[in-house]
Amino acid sequence: MSRYLGIDYGGTQSKLLLTREAPGGLERVREARVPTPQGGDSVEALARLALEFLGPDRIAGFAVTIAGIVDAATGRVVSSANLPWLDGTDPAARIAARIGAPGLAVQDGAAAAEAEATIGAGRGFDDIFVVALGTGVAGAHVVDGRVRAGAHGAAGEIGHIGPGTGARCSCGQRGCLETLIGGARIGDAWDEVLGLPAGSTNAAGGARVVVDAADGGEARAIALLDRATTALGRSLLGVVAMIDPEAIVVGGGLSQSTRWILDPAVRTVRREATFHRLPEIVPSQLGVWAGAWGAAIAARRAAADPAPTPTGTEAAAWPR
Amino acid sequence: MSRYLGIDYGGTQSKLLLTREAPGGLERVREARVPTPQGGDSVEALARLALEFLGPDRIAGFAVTIAGIVDAATGRVVSSANLPWLDGTDPAARIAARIGAPGLAVQDGAAAAEAEATIGAGRGFDDIFVVALGTGVAGAHVVDGRVRAGAHGAAGEIGHIGPGTGARCSCGQRGCLETLIGGARIGDAWDEVLGLPAGSTNAAGGARVVVDAADGGEARAIALLDRATTALGRSLLGVVAMIDPEAIVVGGGLSQSTRWILDPAVRTVRREATFHRLPEIVPSQLGVWAGAWGAAIAARRAAADPAPTPTGTEAAAWPR
Repeated sequence: MSRYLGIDYGGTQSKLLLTREAPGGLERVREARVPTPQGGDSVEALARLALEFLGPDRIAGFAVTIAGIVDAATGRVVSSANLPWLDGTDPAARIAARIGAPGLAVQDGAAAAEAEATIGAGRGFDDIFVVALGTGVAGAHVVDGRVRAGAHGAAGEIGHIGPGTGARCSCGQRGCLETLIGGARIGDAWDEVLGLPAGSTNAAGGARVVVDAADGGEARAIALLDRATTALGRSLLGVVAMIDPEAIVVGGGLSQSTRWILDPAVRTVRREATFHRLPEIVPSQLGVWAGAWGAAIAARRAAADPAPTPTGTEAAAWPR
Repeated sequence: MSRYLGIDYGGTQSKLLLTREAPGGLERVREARVPTPQGGDSVEALARLALEFLGPDRIAGFAVTIAGIVDAATGRVVSSANLPWLDGTDPAARIAARIGAPGLAVQDGAAAAEAEATIGAGRGFDDIFVVALGTGVAGAHVVDGRVRAGAHGAAGEIGHIGPGTGARCSCGQRGCLETLIGGARIGDAWDEVLGLPAGSTNAAGGARVVVDAADGGEARAIALLDRATTALGRSLLGVVAMIDPEAIVVGGGLSQSTRWILDPAVRTVRREATFHRLPEIVPSQLGVWAGAWGAAIAARRAAADPAPTPTGTEAAAWPR
């Protein structure tokens, strides 16, 4: 059975997932978490870790996720905010040379969304919107297992839509969804509520601290999360109106709080829907392994079609 | 050369467009506008008008637009707000029997959007969002010449997205884009500004009256339209963030005012864009004939593929 390696190249921790073909699709052989090597020769160091992880196993291919923009034509990293030493490099080619198997680079959010959509919470649906509630807010529209990248690879930015008034967003606009439910922004807002020095809550665990306070019955935390989930619910209703997906998958760290995040957002959607045909709204299933699974899926797809059409989310590091 | 008839079945006026195959695509043979027959036997009456229009010309097929929901599996009209006598009927089958050629029903907005996208202002682009500014506000995402209907045939509803606060919308939500730039709502707002009895402005021409007042330098009209186009610009920026199209085509009666509608909306988009990759934003070209062109295109497509996959926008009245 062919084996494929998924490498989720994280900012501080990376994940290695060895999979093999099975009758129902890919299945896990084994997995490992490793600290992400930092600095200039980090790709080489990551490749060595992957080689060690593989041991005597031979693979038919691999993919590596990149948190940033990958040029689909060249396989090079255009820019990566968290791993700036990757800018302008071709990490898949370097890893391929070290481990002796073909590979490609994939954008991390797209890989995770495709995995959630096809083998995670979206399994069985063809048209899915995936939202990731993390430090920021990301989204992806997955149709027939592939992210709709848009004309410039920039579609799905649910976190950066809003009225144009309100708090300044990291993107430069005002009032974006991310200003209300981005994990870092919830942490900042909690500092303000409690009169703490800026950054205190995020240093102590971020939005998780606020969720814990809500669990403890703290009314101000409940109010803060209520404002956030009302905004999320309104945004999801906008997704329904614009895209009309079969299902919405909500993932990311914050989504793990069913009581304070997912359930209230779904209640807002149901309360405020009028003409809408509501999709199922479900929590993600693959958790932190979604990116590695997405990479393994991309590796298998590339092996099946060695000259894939570039989509804006995959680099063309696969040997032609 | 094969000929195809497009019938745009309007609420008060219908349009007939005879086309034929030409090297560059369909070309017009002739066209006519007829008052839409009203009441129970109106489809039969419309079919007779079409037969008269065709004269000795033989056609390979036709399509008829329906302002409402068409069941893709049966070809029957589920509901039509403006032509309620169509509910539950199969108008394409009745017209087909009368004129002796196969035909199908298509949803009017989808037909017009596909025509604008493929032979109108969107020609040359593969991924286009079409906005129609009329009495209400409609939208459609056209990819490779076909409307993305969504999981329930309900995608593209840009007119019914908003903050959930503000004026009540016809859809039941509050603050939707349509409450700010729907032609009927602009008319209502102008009544309020001038202290006129409700309905006066819409009876006198609707938003056109306000545009004329702005042309005359009336500051309150300019302010009203400024509020409307700012909202439209923000909504288009949301389309860019979510869908990332190559182009946006703005049509409908109101879009004909470049000075007071299209240009200010584009200025808002350009002023407020941050990370966005901006599409071209262009006025529609086919005007009131977009629906008839879209019907002719659908007829030709159905003739080329007599058993099309239902898309949610087309009825299956084509003989199998």
